[in-house]
Amino acid sequence: MVSAHAGDFVWRAGGAIALAAARGDRATVVCLSYGERGESARAWREGRDLDEIKALRRAEAEAAAAELGADVLFLDAGDYPLVETTGLVDRLVRVYRETEPTVVLTHTLADPYNGDHPAAARMALQARVLAQAVGYDAPGEPLGAPPVFFFEPHQPEQCDFKPDVLLDITPAFEAKRKAMERLPAQRHMWDYYTSLATRRGVQLKRNAGPNLGLESGTLAEAYMRLYPQTTRELA
Amino acid sequence: MVSAHAGDFVWRAGGAIALAAARGDRATVVCLSYGERGESARAWREGRDLDEIKALRRAEAEAAAAELGADVLFLDAGDYPLVETTGLVDRLVRVYRETEPTVVLTHTLADPYNGDHPAAARMALQARVLAQAVGYDAPGEPLGAPPVFFFEPHQPEQCDFKPDVLLDITPAFEAKRKAMERLPAQRHMWDYYTSLATRRGVQLKRNAGPNLGLESGTLAEAYMRLYPQTTRELA
Amino acid sequence: MVSAHAGDFVWRAGGAIALAAARGDRATVVCLSYGERGESARAWREGRDLDEIKALRRAEAEAAAAELGADVLFLDAGDYPLVETTGLVDRLVRVYRETEPTVVLTHTLADPYNGDHPAAARMALQARVLAQAVGYDAPGEPLGAPPVFFFEPHQPEQCDFKPDVLLDITPAFEAKRKAMERLPAQRHMWDYYTSLATRRGVQLKRNAGPNLGLESGTLAEAYMRLYPQTTRELA
Amino acid sequence: MVSAHAGDFVWRAGGAIALAAARGDRATVVCLSYGERGESARAWREGRDLDEIKALRRAEAEAAAAELGADVLFLDAGDYPLVETTGLVDRLVRVYRETEPTVVLTHTLADPYNGDHPAAARMALQARVLAQAVGYDAPGEPLGAPPVFFFEPHQPEQCDFKPDVLLDITPAFEAKRKAMERLPAQRHMWDYYTSLATRRGVQLKRNAGPNLGLESGTLAEAYMRLYPQTTRELA
Amino acid sequence: MVSAHAGDFVWRAGGAIALAAARGDRATVVCLSYGERGESARAWREGRDLDEIKALRRAEAEAAAAELGADVLFLDAGDYPLVETTGLVDRLVRVYRETEPTVVLTHTLADPYNGDHPAAARMALQARVLAQAVGYDAPGEPLGAPPVFFFEPHQPEQCDFKPDVLLDITPAFEAKRKAMERLPAQRHMWDYYTSLATRRGVQLKRNAGPNLGLESGTLAEAYMRLYPQTTRELA
Amino acid sequence: MVSAHAGDFVWRAGGAIALAAARGDRATVVCLSYGERGESARAWREGRDLDEIKALRRAEAEAAAAELGADVLFLDAGDYPLVETTGLVDRLVRVYRETEPTVVLTHTLADPYNGDHPAAARMALQARVLAQAVGYDAPGEPLGAPPVFFFEPHQPEQCDFKPDVLLDITPAFEAKRKAMERLPAQRHMWDYYTSLATRRGVQLKRNAGPNLGLESGTLAEAYMRLYPQTTRELA
Repeated sequence: MVSAHAGDFVWRAGGAIALAAARGDRATVVCLSYGERGESARAWREGRDLDEIKALRRAEAEAAAAELGADVLFLDAGDYPLVETTGLVDRLVRVYRETEPTVVLTHTLADPYNGDHPAAARMALQARVLAQAVGYDAPGEPLGAPPVFFFEPHQPEQCDFKPDVLLDITPAFEAKRKAMERLPAQRHMWDYYTSLATRRGVQLKRNAGPNLGLESGTLAEAYMRLYPQTTRELA
Repeated sequence: MVSAHAGDFVWRAGGAIALAAARGDRATVVCLSYGERGESARAWREGRDLDEIKALRRAEAEAAAAELGADVLFLDAGDYPLVETTGLVDRLVRVYRETEPTVVLTHTLADPYNGDHPAAARMALQARVLAQAVGYDAPGEPLGAPPVFFFEPHQPEQCDFKPDVLLDITPAFEAKRKAMERLPAQRHMWDYYTSLATRRGVQLKRNAGPNLGLESGTLAEAYMRLYPQTTRELA
Repeated sequence: MVSAHAGDFVWRAGGAIALAAARGDRATVVCLSYGERGESARAWREGRDLDEIKALRRAEAEAAAAELGADVLFLDAGDYPLVETTGLVDRLVRVYRETEPTVVLTHTLADPYNGDHPAAARMALQARVLAQAVGYDAPGEPLGAPPVFFFEPHQPEQCDFKPDVLLDITPAFEAKRKAMERLPAQRHMWDYYTSLATRRGVQLKRNAGPNLGLESGTLAEAYMRLYPQTTRELA
Repeated sequence: MVSAHAGDFVWRAGGAIALAAARGDRATVVCLSYGERGESARAWREGRDLDEIKALRRAEAEAAAAELGADVLFLDAGDYPLVETTGLVDRLVRVYRETEPTVVLTHTLADPYNGDHPAAARMALQARVLAQAVGYDAPGEPLGAPPVFFFEPHQPEQCDFKPDVLLDITPAFEAKRKAMERLPAQRHMWDYYTSLATRRGVQLKRNAGPNLGLESGTLAEAYMRLYPQTTRELA
Repeated sequence: MVSAHAGDFVWRAGGAIALAAARGDRATVVCLSYGERGESARAWREGRDLDEIKALRRAEAEAAAAELGADVLFLDAGDYPLVETTGLVDRLVRVYRETEPTVVLTHTLADPYNGDHPAAARMALQARVLAQAVGYDAPGEPLGAPPVFFFEPHQPEQCDFKPDVLLDITPAFEAKRKAMERLPAQRHMWDYYTSLATRRGVQLKRNAGPNLGLESGTLAEAYMRLYPQTTRELA
Repeated sequence: MVSAHAGDFVWRAGGAIALAAARGDRATVVCLSYGERGESARAWREGRDLDEIKALRRAEAEAAAAELGADVLFLDAGDYPLVETTGLVDRLVRVYRETEPTVVLTHTLADPYNGDHPAAARMALQARVLAQAVGYDAPGEPLGAPPVFFFEPHQPEQCDFKPDVLLDITPAFEAKRKAMERLPAQRHMWDYYTSLATRRGVQLKRNAGPNLGLESGTLAEAYMRLYPQTTRELA
């Protein structure tokens, strides 16, 4: 899971990460930056300096990741703007080769509210393709073809986000809520993302039909696929 | 599975149907017409009359369905043009209520080469929604929310067909080939659709990655979803 | 405002209607049907008959409209399916000619969950164009060119709904909430649409910027324009 | 060339028609209606009755067609609304079978300002497909596959009109101007469409490059293709 | 207003700028380059050298800006290609922080005829987002959320330009015409853009309806919004 | 013709190139890289080193180009990733100015399977625009406006590739097949691309109609235009 800023993974994909961890899969979150400039308004207004803010955001993200059961890796590449470089892409290639993910989650490719998100997504996707090439000079075996899922941005319609997949996160929501509560600076988001999970849950039930035995409190996260699903059965 | 003409289900979704039948699921094909005017050029050129052609197409479709393990239902609504009526939609509602499908397959909503295909799709979709309403006056229980898959049209790009799902039909391909061979008037299509299955199989392997243990002769069919996938795990 | 079913106007555009009424403008709601078959599952399950259900839905809609300060007109054209006819379009032309609306609200043109919604929208739009023609044989003066706004459907992304306009309904929300509470059969929707108003309000604030003096509890409804905005000032 | 109303062919495709006639090709214009209700505001305001207006529009269209060198056929199907029927489509099939066009021109499939235009286009396209089927019961040989070009609507961007083809009509513009002048009720359109031809001519020159020897006064019409171009050389 | 080359602001947004200045608002034009290589063909053919051309274009742009009542700022970043750098974006951030615009105008994000235009737009948008962050290290207060309007490119349909907003520039057109006439090297454009203003004016009238009291000589400019409009009233 | 890797031009546009050469036109292929890292898996697995692989790919590409009758130019810019630089674009400008192409072929702008392809396309397009400017500092005359065609990617629908043009390559196919056979490392592609040519040929015949006298073994390549076609006749 590749995200631009330290907090992104919690709000947008905390449920998917907690589900994976609960299944016993390894979940690795790569934070390209701490979100120290663009996503830390309160800390700046409180007069903190850059290093304090980075340490603060790092500690919060680590605590949230622990609630979800995920590893977290900080590349400290700077934000606002997050600048795309071949060096940073190369670091991501190495992470892919080492962790051999079976699924990749990242930001949408469009986001008119935050240029760091598409920049992170472009690097995540480029590195995934490079990591597949045996001729790319990095340790490890060539990567397979893990499917890519874009998680939901804050203003989905403005980011051309049309949900392809509604993921039932009901059993993982308690962990997600706890992880959100590890980010006290964004307390107003706790209820906002709980309410979004309810909304996506209602849509999930509508699309899954009454026969699925979903309890009324279904909670969900929405995703978009980059590549076609491959399967042995239509369902 | 709702198709406009008698032969459509074989070429476009024969693999999915045979896979379902092989799993022991019931597969029902509804042919709104026999394709007697629009898809029987050879028979017309040979001087057959309308009733002969309808009988011929019906017999072929039944033989092909038998190879796939599917039931087939003919509504004999006429083709070229297939005219949308509330009566025909009502018949489809009754079929849904009776067969309680867990998956619906039909044509794409755009097809500039054949207006009957979108007309069939629109009726299949409208009837599915009507069948869900307890207040709709037809026997049986309200339908659940079976996912809808559009099968691949003859000229996919011109029909806005972008594959969402690549279905591995390798184990079912022998049955599909036999079903195709039950349609002798379109002998030139046998190899054409075998070649398409190879092409979609190559794409499936590319998207599934080397770790899936797919043998080199993978064969596939392509589909598009109308509604988001609902799932308990991203994969 | 043209809607397919009796309840639609409350959930989707209650704020806009209440705002207009509060400004002293006349707001007229045209319900093409009562939603008696497709949107009255609970009443059917309770064993009511068709006439009872229509009366019930009518009474509820009238009570809700009264809370909003709107007139409501029932054309009783039947639902599930709502069938498009030139006669029904003609009735809408006459309503336009008589009420001379300065703004038209209706459903989106795509809705894979409910075919009555696009059918209502197509008729609302066709009638608007016909009413503009001096040669169309109906009483009254030719209509001007009132802008058209599509209100938000239940599953916006699946209906190609991308908000163009975020309308601040904070001062009208109390009336909208009361109108919703006049629809007791859909009690679970009261909080759902309150939560949606909060969500759209957060987006409104994000797009309007900090300088607008918007209090933190801003509530909003989302709309899409069919035609370009005409203006004397960019803002 | 299939148009909804009597005047449409002049403004939108007069250049293409005159070019074809000048090459010695037969050009047939089918007017589904006279535009008697929707496009004759001035005549209605002058107090003419329906029959007078139809006669007036017919005479004007015949005079304009003569300037362009085209035949014109009036189906008198009524406008505002132009109602789609299988009977009307059947008449178009017979025209196709008889005239065996090598190119088909019609309206765009979207036009939020005039529902008759898409209705005419849908019928023109459906009839073209039906006319191709040997099994369709109408005199004449099955039609080939004439390419379809959509001509430019009045508000191109709102009709999803993105020009695929810029046609140099410089040598035919004098005939087009004369044909426009045969439509005195729309005098204000003469200069409007002359100015549009200039604008499209400037774009043609920009896309054709300096090497084409186009004089500075190049005039053009814009078209969109429905089907891919087939060719033996890329150019 | 951020433009790639010195002349762009006059042709595409001169009306909006003059309207703003006439209202007493401050209008600042930022020209990232002089258009010295890509938009000065005549001067190069006359044998001028680079510095002469830059001086010439600068003087013309200043004269045109004076006619419109705007300030103009030249960043002299070079054109053909205009290269995106973090340094240049940072200069734009500082301009935003200093001028605190309430509206931002720039090029479309797609333009297959001129790569400098999208490059300018991308930088204008990125800088606007960066300027909003309190943590971004530049003087001044964080920027609000000024709406962004894309002005009309030379070949609108090829640039995915679909007008959202038609701005009535009738009262400002005299100033726009005078500003255009300050650019003598592009004399052929004077009438071209006058004719475009007429065309957009006709469309504005069609969309605004007959009740707006618009005189027949209405002139307009077309714009697209990047973000949804926020409003307290639908109109 | 600008391609990212050494082999691309054979599979995707070999027919168009051979047709041009057969007509006596000069065909120049620019390979930005040898595809040494990303498209040479077999050679890496065989233990070759980088220089060997580059030499191997170069020799193969030269042999294939010779079969087609084309010149080939290697810029050796490196692949996986192919990095966009102003220097590399400048080299392409010089190639354009020197070869004065009348047609430009390149990759699609989207390709989620291979980031080098869009990078090559962006540079090919940017350089074409720069080469048109008299003020751009490179030897030779300003380029005209050669039309641009995108050739077909490996997974067309995922790359937003919708064929605009179907090119009949039947007379050139023997040369294309021979050229493919010069690339022994990709032996499995020989039949794959032969089968694709058959498939596109079937579509060409369907779109061209029965009157074109196309023999049954028609073979074709598919292309998309970037700019509108300019023509003196609709066909």
